Amino acid sequence: MAVRRVAIDTWRENVAYLHRDCAVYRAEGFQALSKIEVRANGRRILATVNVVDDLGIVACDELGLSEDAFALLGVEAGYKVAVAQAEPPESMGALFRKIAGERLQREDLRAIVRDIAEHRYSKIELTAFVVACNRDELDREEVFFLSDAMVATGQRLDWHEGLVVDKHCIGGIPGNRTSMLVVPIVAAHGLLCPKTSSRAITSPAGTADTMEVLANVELPLQDLQRIVRDHRGCLAWGGTAQLSPADDVLISVERPLSIDSPGQMVASILSKKIAAGSTHLVLDIPIGPTAKVRSMPEAQRLRRLFEYVARRLGLSLDVVITDGRQPIGNGIGPVLEARDVMRVLENDPRAPNDLRQKSLRLAGRLIECDPDVRGGDGYAIARDILDSGRALSRMQAIIAAQGGKAFDHNHPRLGALHFEVCAPADGVVAGIDNQQIARIARLAGAPKVQGAGVDLLCKLGDAVVSGQPLYRVHADFPADLEFARQSSAHGSGYRVGTADEVPRVFVEF
Amino acid sequence: MAVRRVAIDTWRENVAYLHRDCAVYRAEGFQALSKIEVRANGRRILATVNVVDDLGIVACDELGLSEDAFALLGVEAGYKVAVAQAEPPESMGALFRKIAGERLQREDLRAIVRDIAEHRYSKIELTAFVVACNRDELDREEVFFLSDAMVATGQRLDWHEGLVVDKHCIGGIPGNRTSMLVVPIVAAHGLLCPKTSSRAITSPAGTADTMEVLANVELPLQDLQRIVRDHRGCLAWGGTAQLSPADDVLISVERPLSIDSPGQMVASILSKKIAAGSTHLVLDIPIGPTAKVRSMPEAQRLRRLFEYVARRLGLSLDVVITDGRQPIGNGIGPVLEARDVMRVLENDPRAPNDLRQKSLRLAGRLIECDPDVRGGDGYAIARDILDSGRALSRMQAIIAAQGGKAFDHNHPRLGALHFEVCAPADGVVAGIDNQQIARIARLAGAPKVQGAGVDLLCKLGDAVVSGQPLYRVHADFPADLEFARQSSAHGSGYRVGTADEVPRVFVEF
Repeated sequence: MAVRRVAIDTWRENVAYLHRDCAVYRAEGFQALSKIEVRANGRRILATVNVVDDLGIVACDELGLSEDAFALLGVEAGYKVAVAQAEPPESMGALFRKIAGERLQREDLRAIVRDIAEHRYSKIELTAFVVACNRDELDREEVFFLSDAMVATGQRLDWHEGLVVDKHCIGGIPGNRTSMLVVPIVAAHGLLCPKTSSRAITSPAGTADTMEVLANVELPLQDLQRIVRDHRGCLAWGGTAQLSPADDVLISVERPLSIDSPGQMVASILSKKIAAGSTHLVLDIPIGPTAKVRSMPEAQRLRRLFEYVARRLGLSLDVVITDGRQPIGNGIGPVLEARDVMRVLENDPRAPNDLRQKSLRLAGRLIECDPDVRGGDGYAIARDILDSGRALSRMQAIIAAQGGKAFDHNHPRLGALHFEVCAPADGVVAGIDNQQIARIARLAGAPKVQGAGVDLLCKLGDAVVSGQPLYRVHADFPADLEFARQSSAHGSGYRVGTADEVPRVFVEF
Repeated sequence: MAVRRVAIDTWRENVAYLHRDCAVYRAEGFQALSKIEVRANGRRILATVNVVDDLGIVACDELGLSEDAFALLGVEAGYKVAVAQAEPPESMGALFRKIAGERLQREDLRAIVRDIAEHRYSKIELTAFVVACNRDELDREEVFFLSDAMVATGQRLDWHEGLVVDKHCIGGIPGNRTSMLVVPIVAAHGLLCPKTSSRAITSPAGTADTMEVLANVELPLQDLQRIVRDHRGCLAWGGTAQLSPADDVLISVERPLSIDSPGQMVASILSKKIAAGSTHLVLDIPIGPTAKVRSMPEAQRLRRLFEYVARRLGLSLDVVITDGRQPIGNGIGPVLEARDVMRVLENDPRAPNDLRQKSLRLAGRLIECDPDVRGGDGYAIARDILDSGRALSRMQAIIAAQGGKAFDHNHPRLGALHFEVCAPADGVVAGIDNQQIARIARLAGAPKVQGAGVDLLCKLGDAVVSGQPLYRVHADFPADLEFARQSSAHGSGYRVGTADEVPRVFVEF
C-alpha cells in the first residue's frame, strides 16, 4: 500500500487511517482499534487503526499515518509499505501474572520493559502495569530487576572517567531547583556532572522545564557529550538521550494518575543515573507533613530500598534526608524558579536563602566525593565557588553552550494575569501545604505555560498582618487563572497561627 | 464554532478535530489529548482533542467530530456549538484514594460510577480503577456500594409482577449455552424470564453473541417489553437497555486485560439483574482445574460474597456449584453453539447430553421458585417441557419476535477454513483445558467471526485411538487460522491418558 501523511497530531499515539473499503482492511479482518504493524525500508512501527469513510482523507489503496507515526516511519509519501496485524506483545503473560499479584522474574521484567520501550503496549496495558506495580506490589528484588531492565533497554553513556557525580531529589517539594546550582558549583570544582533531568510529572516544574527557560534542553547526544567535555557539566532533558525509553512511556500514564510508587520511583531514578554513566549519586529525600515522605521511619524505609538497588547496580549512593516542610525558594513555575536560581548565582540580595543554603550543602556533599577533599570541607569549598562568581560563570558557559535564551531575572516574563492571596488574620505562617501550592501553580498553567505559577511572598515562621499578601498567582489564560482562583479559595495552602504551631523536623539539612 | 462530521471511526472514543490555527484552540490553551466539552441544543459530550494541520479536514473556525461523537451530539453539520475545556471528573479524588489502597464510601463509588457512565473517564483512568479494584481490593461492603451505584446509574425495568426469574453463570466454561434452553423452558412453564445477557468479555462467545446467530439481540426497550409480555421471556443483549451503562464501559478495559475480579464480577452480575427487574436468581458457579474457580473453598467464598451483596440488594439468590472440568456442549463459537442449542431443543440424537442435562437441572431449580411446585419436582417438569417440544415452540416464538434469522442446524454456516487436532496416542481423554480451548477459538476469530471456533469431537472419559480427531477448528481468515494453528501446536488443550487420570469433582450437578 502507498503511505500517506494525514495531518492529524495524535500526540504520542501512532494512528493508522484505513478506508473502510480498503482491501487489506477487509481481508485481514482488521477492525477499529486493531493494532497493526507497518513495515517500510527496514523500519517497523505499531499503530492503532481508525477506520475512515471519506476518500478525501485516505483512498482505498492508501495507508494514512498520523503526523508522529509518519515521521517515525521516516519514508516519503507514496512509499510502498507492508501492513500486518500486530501480534500481541510477547510479555502479555507476565503482565497478566503481575495483575494477578504474582512475583515476576528478571526475564519477565526484561520482556515487559522491552515491549513498553518499543511502544507495543496500549494505554490500557501500560496503566494496568503501573497500577499493578503501585504501592508495595514490587519487592526489592523486583525493583532491582525493573531498574536493570530499564538500563538494558536504553542507551548507556560512558564518560571514560572513574568519577562521574550526580544529584537527585525524589520530588514533591515545589521550587527546590538545587540542581541548577549544584551542577555549576561542582563542575567549577572540576567534578564531571552530566545532569540529565526530567520534566515535571505531577509537579508545576521539573529541572528540565526550568532550565528550558534559560537554554535549549533537548540536545542531540553528540552536542551533550561535547558540552560536558568542555564544561564538566550540563543541564539537559534526559528524554532525548533515550537513557530509559520505557520510563518515559510509563510517565505518560503515571502523570494523569499522580502515581509515584516507591518501586517505580527507585527504578526510574537509579536506572537513569546508571544509564547516564554516573558512578556517585547524592539523593535528596525531603520529609514534612505535606511532602511525599511524611515521617522519618518512612524515609528510612525508602532509603534502604534505594541503597539495596543501588548496590545491586554498582552505584555509590549517599542519601540525605532534608527539610520538606515547605517549598524551597520563592517561585513555583518555570520562569519564577529560573529567576530564583539566577538570583542565587548572582549573589543578589533578593535571592532566597533556603535555596542557596540547601544547594551549598548538596554541592558540598558531592565535592567530598573528590578524593583530594577532606570530609567536612565540601560546604566551604562550594560557598567559595558560589560567592566568588565562579558558579555564575560556569552556568553562563553551560547556558551558552546549550543555546542560551534571553532571560533577565530583574524582568522575568511572568503570566500577565495575576491575583494575590492574603493573610486572613494577624499571626505567624505556621504551615504551607506543598501539594496545594503545587496544585494551584499547575492549575495556573505551569509547567506548560512557562510564566505561570505561584510566587511565595512569605515562608514558615514569618510574621504577617491581616490582609498582607501571602503569595501571587500568575497565568496567561483566563480559564487557567479562574481554575487557580477557585482552588485557592477552596484552600489557600497557607495556615496562619502562632509560632508554636510551626511543625518541627529533625533532618540532616 | 460550526460543527463538522469527520468521517473517521474512532470506536467508542469521542475525538474532536481542531485546526492548529483555530482561535478557540489557542485562546483556551488546549493541547493535543485535552478533554473538551462540546455543547449544542441542550446536549453535551466530552471529546479528546486531535490537532489537525490540514484545512481539508477541518477549517480554522470549525470543530470536527469523529463519527460516533457526531452521532452522539445529534445535530446537523454546520450547527453552532459551544466548546470549553472539560473539568476533571468530580470523582478523581476518590479514584486516587482507591489507587492508594483506601476503602471507599457509598458516595465515592456513586460519583465514580456516574462519571464512568457519562464517559468522563479516559482509558487510563478507567484502567486504573479496574486494576485498583482487582483481586480482593474491594471489601464486601464496597462491592455492595459498587453494585448499588451501578443500579442507580442505569435504567431499571419494572415488570409489575411479584416473581421475575433469571439465571446466570459466572463464565469461564466454553460452550455452556444453558440460558438459551432454560429461558424457553421456564417461560413455557409460565414464569417471567426476561433474560438480558452479555456479549463475550474474554470468552469465544457470550449468550448474546450466540443468540445473535438466530435473531436480533439489540432490541429497543419497548420491543423487549412487548416480547416479554407476549412470550414470558426473551434473549436480548443487555447493552441496549442501558441497565448498567458504567459496567459496559468498564468491560471495554477489562476485556483486553482478561480481568475478572470477584468484586467486579459480583457487582456487574447482580446490578444488571436488579436493573432488569429480577426478583429470583439461580447463579451457576462451575469449578474445575481450568475453570475460573478451582476449588470448593474458593467457590464457597465467592458464594458468600454473592449472597451477602444479593441480600443487601433485596434479591433472592440460589447459588449452584456445577461441574466445570470441561466445556459444556460440543461447539465453541457463536454458530457452533447455536447449532448445539437447536439440537437439544429439537431432541436431535446428535444433541450434546451434558448441555441438555445441565439446562434441565438449572431450569428445574428456577421452576421450583413457582409456589405451586413442590421442592424436587422442577427437573421432571422441565424435562417434560423439553421432550414434548413445548420448549422448541417457545424458542421459535421468541426468535420470531426478535426478528429471526435463517438458521439450519443441519447446515450451520461454519468458517470455510479448518483443520483438525488429533490424539497423539491411544488412551482416554483425561483432561480438557477450558482456557486453552477458549484461546484457540478466539484466535480462530470467535466471537467476531460468527462461524469461527472449535468443534469438540470427544469429551472427558472418551476412549480415543492415536490419530483420531479430538476437535476441529473453523476460521474465515487465513491469518486467524494460522494464529489458532500455532496456538494448538503449542498446546492442544487435550490430555490423553488413562481413565484414572480424569479429574473428579463433587458438585451439585
